[in-house]
Amino acid sequence: MQHPARLVPLAFLALILAGTGLLMLPVATEDGRAAPVLTALFTAVSAVSVTGLVVVDTGTYWSGFGEAVVTALIQIGGFGIIMAGTLLGVLVLGRLRLRGRLLAQSENSSVRLGDVRTLVGQIALLTVVVEAATAVVLAFRFRIHYGYGAADAVWHGVFHSVASFNNAGFGLEADSLMGFVTDPVVTLTVSAAVIIGGIGFPVMVEALRNARRAARRGSGRGHARIAWSLHTRITAVMTGVLLAVGFAGYAVLEWRNPATLGPLGAGDKLLAAFVAGTQPRTAGFNNLDVSALTPETLLLTDALMFIGGGPAGTAGGIKVTTFALLAVVIWSEIRGEPDVAVFGRAIPAETQRQALTVALLGVAAVAMGTAVIMVDTGFGLDRVLFEAVSAFATVGLSTGITPDLPPASQIAVIILMFIGRVGTVAVAAALALRTRRRLYTFPEERPLVS
Amino acid sequence: MQHPARLVPLAFLALILAGTGLLMLPVATEDGRAAPVLTALFTAVSAVSVTGLVVVDTGTYWSGFGEAVVTALIQIGGFGIIMAGTLLGVLVLGRLRLRGRLLAQSENSSVRLGDVRTLVGQIALLTVVVEAATAVVLAFRFRIHYGYGAADAVWHGVFHSVASFNNAGFGLEADSLMGFVTDPVVTLTVSAAVIIGGIGFPVMVEALRNARRAARRGSGRGHARIAWSLHTRITAVMTGVLLAVGFAGYAVLEWRNPATLGPLGAGDKLLAAFVAGTQPRTAGFNNLDVSALTPETLLLTDALMFIGGGPAGTAGGIKVTTFALLAVVIWSEIRGEPDVAVFGRAIPAETQRQALTVALLGVAAVAMGTAVIMVDTGFGLDRVLFEAVSAFATVGLSTGITPDLPPASQIAVIILMFIGRVGTVAVAAALALRTRRRLYTFPEERPLVS
Ligand SMILES: [K+]
Ligand SMILES: [K+]
Repeated sequence: MQHPARLVPLAFLALILAGTGLLMLPVATEDGRAAPVLTALFTAVSAVSVTGLVVVDTGTYWSGFGEAVVTALIQIGGFGIIMAGTLLGVLVLGRLRLRGRLLAQSENSSVRLGDVRTLVGQIALLTVVVEAATAVVLAFRFRIHYGYGAADAVWHGVFHSVASFNNAGFGLEADSLMGFVTDPVVTLTVSAAVIIGGIGFPVMVEALRNARRAARRGSGRGHARIAWSLHTRITAVMTGVLLAVGFAGYAVLEWRNPATLGPLGAGDKLLAAFVAGTQPRTAGFNNLDVSALTPETLLLTDALMFIGGGPAGTAGGIKVTTFALLAVVIWSEIRGEPDVAVFGRAIPAETQRQALTVALLGVAAVAMGTAVIMVDTGFGLDRVLFEAVSAFATVGLSTGITPDLPPASQIAVIILMFIGRVGTVAVAAALALRTRRRLYTFPEERPLVS
Repeated sequence: MQHPARLVPLAFLALILAGTGLLMLPVATEDGRAAPVLTALFTAVSAVSVTGLVVVDTGTYWSGFGEAVVTALIQIGGFGIIMAGTLLGVLVLGRLRLRGRLLAQSENSSVRLGDVRTLVGQIALLTVVVEAATAVVLAFRFRIHYGYGAADAVWHGVFHSVASFNNAGFGLEADSLMGFVTDPVVTLTVSAAVIIGGIGFPVMVEALRNARRAARRGSGRGHARIAWSLHTRITAVMTGVLLAVGFAGYAVLEWRNPATLGPLGAGDKLLAAFVAGTQPRTAGFNNLDVSALTPETLLLTDALMFIGGGPAGTAGGIKVTTFALLAVVIWSEIRGEPDVAVFGRAIPAETQRQALTVALLGVAAVAMGTAVIMVDTGFGLDRVLFEAVSAFATVGLSTGITPDLPPASQIAVIILMFIGRVGTVAVAAALALRTRRRLYTFPEERPLVS
């Protein structure tokens, strides 16, 4: 218990157990009978890890109390994930710039308590502002355009805003956002909250700080230089590229699919393709019927989900920075560059190895989960791989097989969600905290590769 | 044209074009009509890359002349692959120990002509000895046990010995080795040639040298120390592990499958599972009906094929050393070791990056090939991924979709076979030959990972 970062998996576990207990209360279900332990556990893990995969329909199975518990688990889980990721960033980088150099790692390699308090406040502020704005827009839309009752409109607005900002993908309608596929107000508002939550706290803080500086400069009050960190530049570029790929991919591959985009007008097709393309990063709402997507769209979505969103946010996956670093390492290697650089900054060898470790452990986890579910169920690779990637990357998109999974496969999905969420943080924390020193060195020897 | 290693892709291309031309001659087909250019090209690429995927049945479509062309392409292709891989090893390592230090890289970073001559002789000797022994055993078995005519027995023995040692997976029977599934003589002889060819020339040379030393020491004539290189130790351990995994996997997953192991007795089941387990490394004969394998066996085989065999042999895939290095890098990273070591030897950072590059380019190639074929055909992911991995890793196992592929998908398979075979060698050669020197360095900056 040397270090707070070590507590992250334990804290998540405690939250999951508390959530499971609450969801097993008879008052948590619509019909007043206690939920089975596996159903409660699955739902709690899915909520805490902000995934959104479900074995029962959220809106009809759980009571108002049950839905409130799910909402709270999502909110606490999402907050914890941003907090853990950001603290880890401080540990890895030695410091994280938030307004000047507010957060710093002290000499004994822990984070100062005052810094943690500031961080909690800033994350809470960002969360409340984005969620409130989202909830207000959604509630008015539900009330005015769809004629929901006032209380219902507010509750649906709050629930979906929490689910969106935390990239949790839970919906109160059984068909997620499919009923709103042609509504730009609902789907674009949700998409915006998803993107802001998923791009990561460090990027948001830097963007806000630079916006403030630009405003100050614009009003002639200062001459602060607008500088973007390497982390923000990589995350922003990759997020833009992946959004474009998702948009183009869904539009091209589904344009004529009669079960998805086919029946829509051209404008609605473009809207629906854009919104669908934001979800693999890694929100998990679906405005289209996932089980009707073409196999090649599923494969594209597998790739987008696995890559995921930005670090230290509510998104899952191996993260866009990890993917970008690996691409740059390979590109440098092919060109025979002596070191790995991006945007004029060299990437330390430890960071390269860390990216490799996260990506390949992800591949291993998905492969093992897929194998277990295939052996257990006999479903085809298309759908099982999709569900495994969706669980590992805490996305929550589903071709519909999850409610039909036997217990062993449900447990495999639970484990994938847990290690997808906590595993990478735990591994990264271990890397940051426990660099062994050798008092001797080994002679080098090169085995042949390729 | 600075360096012979750069010529490798060009040499393969020339051989492929010559083979395509010969196979398009009317005399090459059984019915005397010229084969279509795509059929001839596909067959030539499959033979030269020692893959074994076919769009037409080798035994019935091609004439005796056509089969001889295929045999020659396999033999020349396999020899070229061993040669290119070994030369690359010399370039990468600066030297390769064959009897003392026979092969050395000279000062101007090319290999001495005398060394190349010695190498050609040694590879030819190993090839001839192993193929002759295999052919003799098989020919006698076909003649005596199966009652083939004398000429037919010899021709089948020679063809299958060439295909085995070169891991080419071509067969003269339409059902490959399925007719011999319970025959230990045929299947174990083929498996032995496959393993010897696929483990790589450097390992074989070292094993022979150390066997000679051990014999000398045993007879009291010398005190030479038996030392194994890191390369040989990694390759041997990984090959053993993967053979065991393949054996156990096929036995467990197919034991009760009525279309594969199910109908066999227990002993035959074990024999068939062992032989089937050797083929993904990367021979491509099938003693079981691949299209009847369970989806989970296909997935396991995907993984085994992708990893492949030893470098500088006739096997494909990313190679067992590449896989082992990545595993060790990750393990070291998780444990927080300051450097990456295996068997008491440190692995240089360039070698780690090289392994990463080869593996991830492989993933990218397979993913793109799979996507193209899925968009083009509508086959499911199970079978398309299997075919794409089989092509990239030059394995030749098939669920049977290859003959049904439309032209665009056939071309995708051709490209996968070509880059699977030549791409890694070309990339590795580029790495070895073209390390740029920077006259300046970039400041370091760490983006967040995970
Ligand atoms: K999610
Ligand atoms: K092969």
